Amino acid sequence: MKKADIVVIGGSAAGLTAAITARRHYPEKKTLLIRREDQVLIPCGIPYIFGTVGSPENNLIPDAVLDKNGIELMIAEVASIGREDNMLETSEGEIAYERLILATGSLPTKPPIQGIDLPGVFTIQKDVDYLRNLQKQLEAATNVVVIGGGFIGIEFADEINKATGKNVTVVEIAPHCLSLAYDEEFCVEMEELVRSRGITLRTSSKVKAIKGQDNVEEVALDDGSTIKADLVILGVGAGPNVELAANAGLQIGTQTGAITVDRTMRTSDGNIYACGDCAKKISFFGGAPSNLRLASIATSEARIAAANLYGLRRENIGTVGVWSTSVGNLAMGTAGLTEDMARDRGYCAVSATVEGPNRHPGKMPGAAKTVLKLVFEQHSGVILGGQVMGDATAGEIINALSACIQSRMTAEDIAMFQTGTHPALTASPIAYPLVNAAEMAIGKMGN
Amino acid sequence: MKKADIVVIGGSAAGLTAAITARRHYPEKKTLLIRREDQVLIPCGIPYIFGTVGSPENNLIPDAVLDKNGIELMIAEVASIGREDNMLETSEGEIAYERLILATGSLPTKPPIQGIDLPGVFTIQKDVDYLRNLQKQLEAATNVVVIGGGFIGIEFADEINKATGKNVTVVEIAPHCLSLAYDEEFCVEMEELVRSRGITLRTSSKVKAIKGQDNVEEVALDDGSTIKADLVILGVGAGPNVELAANAGLQIGTQTGAITVDRTMRTSDGNIYACGDCAKKISFFGGAPSNLRLASIATSEARIAAANLYGLRRENIGTVGVWSTSVGNLAMGTAGLTEDMARDRGYCAVSATVEGPNRHPGKMPGAAKTVLKLVFEQHSGVILGGQVMGDATAGEIINALSACIQSRMTAEDIAMFQTGTHPALTASPIAYPLVNAAEMAIGKMGN
Repeated sequence: MKKADIVVIGGSAAGLTAAITARRHYPEKKTLLIRREDQVLIPCGIPYIFGTVGSPENNLIPDAVLDKNGIELMIAEVASIGREDNMLETSEGEIAYERLILATGSLPTKPPIQGIDLPGVFTIQKDVDYLRNLQKQLEAATNVVVIGGGFIGIEFADEINKATGKNVTVVEIAPHCLSLAYDEEFCVEMEELVRSRGITLRTSSKVKAIKGQDNVEEVALDDGSTIKADLVILGVGAGPNVELAANAGLQIGTQTGAITVDRTMRTSDGNIYACGDCAKKISFFGGAPSNLRLASIATSEARIAAANLYGLRRENIGTVGVWSTSVGNLAMGTAGLTEDMARDRGYCAVSATVEGPNRHPGKMPGAAKTVLKLVFEQHSGVILGGQVMGDATAGEIINALSACIQSRMTAEDIAMFQTGTHPALTASPIAYPLVNAAEMAIGKMGN
Repeated sequence: MKKADIVVIGGSAAGLTAAITARRHYPEKKTLLIRREDQVLIPCGIPYIFGTVGSPENNLIPDAVLDKNGIELMIAEVASIGREDNMLETSEGEIAYERLILATGSLPTKPPIQGIDLPGVFTIQKDVDYLRNLQKQLEAATNVVVIGGGFIGIEFADEINKATGKNVTVVEIAPHCLSLAYDEEFCVEMEELVRSRGITLRTSSKVKAIKGQDNVEEVALDDGSTIKADLVILGVGAGPNVELAANAGLQIGTQTGAITVDRTMRTSDGNIYACGDCAKKISFFGGAPSNLRLASIATSEARIAAANLYGLRRENIGTVGVWSTSVGNLAMGTAGLTEDMARDRGYCAVSATVEGPNRHPGKMPGAAKTVLKLVFEQHSGVILGGQVMGDATAGEIINALSACIQSRMTAEDIAMFQTGTHPALTASPIAYPLVNAAEMAIGKMGN
């Protein structure tokens, strides 16, 4: 019988990060990572397989990182967790553990639409063979419909359109694409860009049925219209993969369907931790359950879970929600709550938006417009969130904002923020967007 | 007699930002900005006049920003401050004020070197005509020597070399260029790049004399060697311009020579505030006087001073020191203390350096190496500083780090930091450099 001190189940962002972190904090403990896949895809890179990077093989997490960190790898299916005797049943035999980390991830959501199982309808699976097959079928396709206009949907649509020139239509149920991440004015900017690149967007549109004989032929919408399609990609989110945990009797959240964990990432069994898409999340803002699932949340949770395995030292502050996307030369990032979300949750939200060049003087080469919107709670002045669009530096501006949010800075704090600025790299210190937007918001708070 | 509620003396980064901020916080107050210059240069952009942007005219702060913010402008020389009756004597007559903000800036340091006043020796003055003359003389020069290998010196050297191909030599007294901002390994990287671009660096070299008849002809070093020069640029720093304040009897710091201010940016006269290069600074780390002078510090202080004019609401946390530079495709940023500085000041410093691609997968276009070093206090785990090199995104990575420093985050906090990541914009969430470096440092702390 095989034995390891620490066993991690799952080899994607959460599992890999948990195993690396466990080794860093407990180098004397034997650490085993069990995963189902021969090869592991970089989750956020999946859309880019279909354009920019060209193949699943160019979007893999190299296993060398396991060796380098002294992590043993086993490719196996875990059948069950025996919690009485800390024993796993796997396709490769029994494995005893001292501490177990569940990083079993998520499974693509398949809404109960008629025709959803027709050939030619694909979900987004983190599986090399599945995606290779999708790529092959894509070659033969003429009309592609992406259902779901979130990040993944937009990125898939743009990559396919860019690389193949096929007719690509995105169907989004909400009035705007990306509306779970951005306020309307940012969504509109991205929609205009995406449309200008030749993609058709059908917003406020609900899919009624997917139709076809041997293969998908069209997507029928609620308004009676139809869209020709010989390939459909479903990008409508994912749900936690908790079968193994549930079968082991671990507590599962009734609202989220995710494995219940406390702020230390421990499950209802003190020897078992969970992190990433399979683990229950609560919001940094107010503490209600959160359905956000991002690789960067998963890795943060993994670092908490693994560091706590033999002595609690880290607590999860809750999910802030920080992410970014990029189409053509436009990058957009978001952190925390949008203004709409903040209002919906009951905050008295005050916002300010500034725009200006991201170089100074504006005549410096590469200067591009940056637009930044910050959202604050009116009475406390605490930052609740922000959105940015600009060039590639927007991806790190949003991380500076994330640090402000995680420290619960107020608008006054941000107004005094000491930034580094440089003509060739950033906006002017006189008009640095974070600081300027905070000042503009203060003017609206009436405090 | 002219009268304004708020008078700001000085029109560069600090003065302009103070006036804008005063208008934002006190829109009912009449605000007058008095400056000496017809046109105001973007201070950080000055080196780029000699290459990238081509002329002083392309590096101006447009006066439209004054109009837009309802700020009155007067071009005048202020002769004296009458503190008894709140009255300024100026070349345009007397002006009464209710509150006064001094933003008189700094003057280039001129070390007492033999020959320093020879024709052909230039300091770096924020003056359009002076720089136009420098630019003209540069055209005729063959051998250019830049004395001082700090940011400004390196940026001048690279811009002149890049635009004109002239022989450019940088003379630096310390063993490495940029050593006031970076630890040795970062300095070396920049030095290698600068040398590879055709610039000669003479480090550990002290200038003994500048020689010539009617014009500079050579620079003589302490080791007996000489460097041919028909143009010399002095980039050895600047000292506070406090003549007006000193003549008015305001308290001046004995160590710094700068106008004494408290944390609210008030001088020894409750109606007079000071900010920017002329104002005394204390370090965020330990509170000792600081000689750092940066436009981004100046603007932060200006926002504090102006907001406090009619009721104190903001306190200066002290100077963190955040800045960045860029040569060719390499950007380097620094925030807070370097490891050497931290040790010199008596901290038990622990550092960790990580490097990796700034995209994921590494096959994404535009992927470049990012190197990040973080410095922590060993016992508390509090972040003391960090340095980064990479592509243009380094300019904002350093701002994310600045937010961590200003919030006095610990390595544990940063290890749990929730970042936004994206294949086309940032490093992978599994190896995001801020987080990874914090984890590596924790491993060395032995806590």
